[in-house]
Amino acid sequence: MTDLAPASLPAPPYYAVVFASVRTAGDNGYGETAEQMLKLAAAQPGFLGVDSARGADGLGITVSYWRDADSIAAWRDHAEHALICARGREHWYASFTVQVAKVERAYGFSRPADL
Amino acid sequence: MTDLAPASLPAPPYYAVVFASVRTAGDNGYGETAEQMLKLAAAQPGFLGVDSARGADGLGITVSYWRDADSIAAWRDHAEHALICARGREHWYASFTVQVAKVERAYGFSRPADL
Repeated sequence: MTDLAPASLPAPPYYAVVFASVRTAGDNGYGETAEQMLKLAAAQPGFLGVDSARGADGLGITVSYWRDADSIAAWRDHAEHALICARGREHWYASFTVQVAKVERAYGFSRPADL
Repeated sequence: MTDLAPASLPAPPYYAVVFASVRTAGDNGYGETAEQMLKLAAAQPGFLGVDSARGADGLGITVSYWRDADSIAAWRDHAEHALICARGREHWYASFTVQVAKVERAYGFSRPADL
């Protein structure tokens, strides 16, 4: 068994920001900045958690969870975040989509540890 | 440049189902079934698109997009889908979360082909 698991979240409603992206070739400082950005996001008011995966084909999905739409708006307007987003458009991403969604229902499953 | 890109979607509102999961060890018929399941989903009324990624650490995220909550309910109740979900709990997943969310805002970016 591993401790790896999807983010634990409160009961809905809360908000999700779905960021799907395709990277450009090469790192260009991406890895380090992505880590900094995640730490910065996690320190914002209303941040609830994040799940992130990038497949071998280059498509990545990061879903961050937030208490409400105001928390997302504050994070969007955060100066350092805005700067990093601009750099993302310039250097790191071939394409991306951002979707802001209100989570209405949620459920989960966790295998008993002895299986 | 690659043709790989996040799913193209209509203007909001529409719905997203975020499925985040950690796999058990071994394939156990997962790969083939996952592909069948995706084809079956894509043939349902109200299906808009899907993005999927699984990282080297084993965490995977699949986001499927739907016209409305009714389309999602119909797919949830689809007999073959329900069977495959039960098999997922038995064999394929150490843990997963499912979140049904209404997409309120969306935007995207695509790099000009000459960059």
